[in-house]
Amino acid sequence: MRVLGVDPGLTRCGIGVVDSLPGRRARMVAVGVLQSPPDMSVDLRLLTISQRLDAWMDEHVPDVVAVERVFAQHNVSTVMGTAQVAGLAMVAAARRGVPVAMHTPSEVKAAVTGTGRADKIQVQRMVARILELAELPKPADAADALALAICHLWRPAGALQGGDRHQLTPAQRAWAAAEQASRGPRR
Amino acid sequence: MRVLGVDPGLTRCGIGVVDSLPGRRARMVAVGVLQSPPDMSVDLRLLTISQRLDAWMDEHVPDVVAVERVFAQHNVSTVMGTAQVAGLAMVAAARRGVPVAMHTPSEVKAAVTGTGRADKIQVQRMVARILELAELPKPADAADALALAICHLWRPAGALQGGDRHQLTPAQRAWAAAEQASRGPRR
Repeated sequence: MRVLGVDPGLTRCGIGVVDSLPGRRARMVAVGVLQSPPDMSVDLRLLTISQRLDAWMDEHVPDVVAVERVFAQHNVSTVMGTAQVAGLAMVAAARRGVPVAMHTPSEVKAAVTGTGRADKIQVQRMVARILELAELPKPADAADALALAICHLWRPAGALQGGDRHQLTPAQRAWAAAEQASRGPRR
Repeated sequence: MRVLGVDPGLTRCGIGVVDSLPGRRARMVAVGVLQSPPDMSVDLRLLTISQRLDAWMDEHVPDVVAVERVFAQHNVSTVMGTAQVAGLAMVAAARRGVPVAMHTPSEVKAAVTGTGRADKIQVQRMVARILELAELPKPADAADALALAICHLWRPAGALQGGDRHQLTPAQRAWAAAEQASRGPRR
């Protein structure tokens, strides 16, 4: 299975493609950051990002597109652009008939590090270890996009439907807890 | 000049096309509401709205697309979808080389009613009067899209660059005040 992860952002949008391998391993196919110049008008910035998202999807033909779930209360100054880029990624996938999965930042951190409160550097280190990269994936946006893709590959689907938690790894249990917490009431 | 106005929304997206006529008059070309079913996944809802925005732009070939400016602090539960649909409208315009203008709700209200605090029914009445419609445009989303287009046609460009305010109508002065207020510090 090939997952394309998108860490949405108007100034910097992280993007990463990961293939699952036998034996719960994963391989990085490509990683990058789509940028748009802050001095350009928003419509042209969104068009730039949209065209580059389309190019990545056409080149890598993912089975699933995983997008970071954006919350309205998080970083008010940039949330509109972030939401808009997330929307463009969703439409680019839907237009190709590719399913879209949304994962929260804490789900992603828990999936790759075992804790929903991991910091950026912990995520980068674990992504590098999981994908057997010689160097830490940089910048953080790129690492986050790879982490999103890994999170989707490793999501403990059984756990969410009440499966046997004894068979879960610590990372999977943390993931399930973060996932459940994210379903609670929120404003 | 032909303006296509978009009052963005994921469940209901108002859309309206208005032509300017000589003597500060305006004519309604088309009006409608793009809807997407709330029980559909967000990616498919966005795709539905995106395809219908494309169809409207291809059919009516506007000179400008006017989109309501969305603020992050406004209506947290729906703001993400609203921002995403606004982004789709911007990209649809940019892809066709059509310029995009953003107007705040108070600018729009001031432009058509003379006050930035007008209620929905006042806006509907003034839109009907300006466009010489036999009935009030309904629903409110549709009226707001027409009001956005009128706001763009009637924007007092001179006033914003410090033009002679004595030559402005009351509606234009209210518009300029609302525009200036909206440029103030904001979070």
